[in-house]
Amino acid sequence: AVVDRGVDFANYFCTYAFLYHQKEMLSDRVRMDAYYNSIFSNKHHFVGKTVLDVGTGSGILAIWSAQAGARKVYAVEATKMAEHARELVKANNVQDVVQVIEGSMEDVTLPEKVDIIISEWMGYFLLRESMFDSVIFARERWLKPNGIMYPSHARMWMAPIRTGLTDQKKHDYDGTMEDWLYFVDDTKNYYGVDMSILTKPFDAEQRKYYLQTSLWNNLHPDQVIGTSAVIKEIDCLTATVNDILQVRATFSSSITAEDTRLCGFTGWFDVHFRGRKENPAQQEIELTTAPSMDNCTHWGQQVFLLHSPVRVHEGDDMIVNFSMSRSKENHRLMDVELGCEIKQSSGRELADVHIVKL
Amino acid sequence: AVVDRGVDFANYFCTYAFLYHQKEMLSDRVRMDAYYNSIFSNKHHFVGKTVLDVGTGSGILAIWSAQAGARKVYAVEATKMAEHARELVKANNVQDVVQVIEGSMEDVTLPEKVDIIISEWMGYFLLRESMFDSVIFARERWLKPNGIMYPSHARMWMAPIRTGLTDQKKHDYDGTMEDWLYFVDDTKNYYGVDMSILTKPFDAEQRKYYLQTSLWNNLHPDQVIGTSAVIKEIDCLTATVNDILQVRATFSSSITAEDTRLCGFTGWFDVHFRGRKENPAQQEIELTTAPSMDNCTHWGQQVFLLHSPVRVHEGDDMIVNFSMSRSKENHRLMDVELGCEIKQSSGRELADVHIVKL
Ligand SMILES: Nc1ncnc2c1ncn2[C@@H]1O[C@H](CSCC[C@H](N)C(=O)O)[C@@H](O)[C@H]1O
Ligand SMILES: Nc1ncnc2c1ncn2[C@@H]1O[C@H](CSCC[C@H](N)C(=O)O)[C@@H](O)[C@H]1O
Repeated sequence: AVVDRGVDFANYFCTYAFLYHQKEMLSDRVRMDAYYNSIFSNKHHFVGKTVLDVGTGSGILAIWSAQAGARKVYAVEATKMAEHARELVKANNVQDVVQVIEGSMEDVTLPEKVDIIISEWMGYFLLRESMFDSVIFARERWLKPNGIMYPSHARMWMAPIRTGLTDQKKHDYDGTMEDWLYFVDDTKNYYGVDMSILTKPFDAEQRKYYLQTSLWNNLHPDQVIGTSAVIKEIDCLTATVNDILQVRATFSSSITAEDTRLCGFTGWFDVHFRGRKENPAQQEIELTTAPSMDNCTHWGQQVFLLHSPVRVHEGDDMIVNFSMSRSKENHRLMDVELGCEIKQSSGRELADVHIVKL
Repeated sequence: AVVDRGVDFANYFCTYAFLYHQKEMLSDRVRMDAYYNSIFSNKHHFVGKTVLDVGTGSGILAIWSAQAGARKVYAVEATKMAEHARELVKANNVQDVVQVIEGSMEDVTLPEKVDIIISEWMGYFLLRESMFDSVIFARERWLKPNGIMYPSHARMWMAPIRTGLTDQKKHDYDGTMEDWLYFVDDTKNYYGVDMSILTKPFDAEQRKYYLQTSLWNNLHPDQVIGTSAVIKEIDCLTATVNDILQVRATFSSSITAEDTRLCGFTGWFDVHFRGRKENPAQQEIELTTAPSMDNCTHWGQQVFLLHSPVRVHEGDDMIVNFSMSRSKENHRLMDVELGCEIKQSSGRELADVHIVKL
């Protein structure tokens, strides 16, 4: 699928051109601490080295890399944010080290290969936005044979949850459909046109919107009602685009909460900064977006609702089939399919399989 | 400026592909009544005639035209909504008369010229969306020499107002800037990067967002505090794209309310269905989006705030300079400039001139 640059800009990059949006990321303490510590606890990786920051945004990671002792930092940014990054670099007196380059990673030419690629490329549930593609591209083209990836590893996690969102979304959906039926009546009575033929497509549209779209949420850890599982591991040094086009996993989980409702599943990710085998981190840093009371991130978790919650009990086991692939219309969005089989003392139950947009 | 089709679709057409959005327009009683009455009170225009519906959406205007006795209706729609229009046409048994054509008005070929062009092309403050361009294109190419435009005329109006929105937006803006200053402090203290250089561009961005964007509002008629003025008249039969690229007007208005605050100006539009001189309407219909208690429309009014409200008194006169042109980045959006001079018994006062996005 050929991606139209202009369309991709209108749909995706445009938001990153706002300082307001950059500020949201820069205000995410968990995110900031992880990158900050990964760099400053591992200065030996940076001192005297060349660094490429893929998607530098405000320039923060590039500036830190310079402050940690890098010899040269190439900071590539597709949007006009590059201009602000350049100002910020200068205001922080690292303009001799950091070179901001405005352009798509796929298009720019660097004067040399680099020792480190650093990037904050993670979208919702890790892969939304498909930005890791650009990091892979950069790695293949610009990382030296013994170069290091920051972060070096990434994982996707899933776990069963309970949540009030199921009832809320069902309520919203019911409301919109009820309203539609009045609308059909009115249009027939007042304007002589029978719209009832559109009830089915309208229903499909509203289901997609209210029921078949994954939801952003910061879950309380108590809402996780069973064991969690890693469904994908990525070695940032070796992963190919092909490895991340699809994520398929079958995992098992046991209910750990007492008597409760299984309302769906949640997905989150973590990334690690470990350096590489021949040149490991002195201190390994983890950035996790797991449900937490004190360490919420702007990524939150993604919630995939089952629209008929299932009564479950401590010790119930389930097998979950998960599959995620890129949406045909927009390679930066994902289609998710989820099915679940629950083995209860009373027998077997199947929770509905459905397709959801992420 | 060449318009990229894909980008235009991503930014503009996409919303019209949702039944939810079409339903919003179909639920606008003022809008629906006006078009319905314009057609059914003027059947003599339609009986046995050929009609082109530019941007048929759900197909409603095409179906009405057929029901009023048209011989043939070409219903052109750029989005996938065309498929629903086709279903609706069939369900209402006018498939022999209405031919739905999926495509851009600029691209499609009709088998014949038409007697009537009907279209609901009006955006916020009439011209937002620049869809009238496509109607002009259709008229030049497909309307017979004696053909009729539905609607036939359009006008833009402005009037001075008072509103609590000034204080509200100022409050929101102040809040976001206060928050920014804390953010700059924190980033310096915790992460060793001085972001203060970005305060100015952040401020500019937030001003644009909170203070320099016109606002959608359904005003209460009491909020209009002075005489209103027509700032633009369009004859849909003769207007060219050149005529609507820019709207410049200098108008005067007198304060009619007692002692109050001039907070800004509002803009709305009306359109008329009058047929044409040689073939007039039997009953002229008006569709107005003026401030009203009982006849609100989904267009509401556009509000342009002055960010230093001015104390005014009954009888104060003002001269307002208004200028609107298409935004360079997106031809469907507008840049508005507004300046105002108030002659008070106490002397002359200038209210701030500024540029606003619509
Ligand atoms: N292919 C590509 N080329 C250049 N920049 C890209 C890109 N894909 C995404 N980006 C940019 O990457 C940034 C990701 S957000 C992270 C910003 C910054 N590194 C920080 O950590 O705060 C955005 O600003 C986006 O515009
Ligand atoms: N150049 C163009 N060619 C075809 N359709 C267009 C167009 N510009 C706008 N449209 C379509 O015009 C519609 C305007 S909204 C009005 C819909 C319908 N006529 C009604 O009155 O309810 C949208 O569905 C939009 O997709």
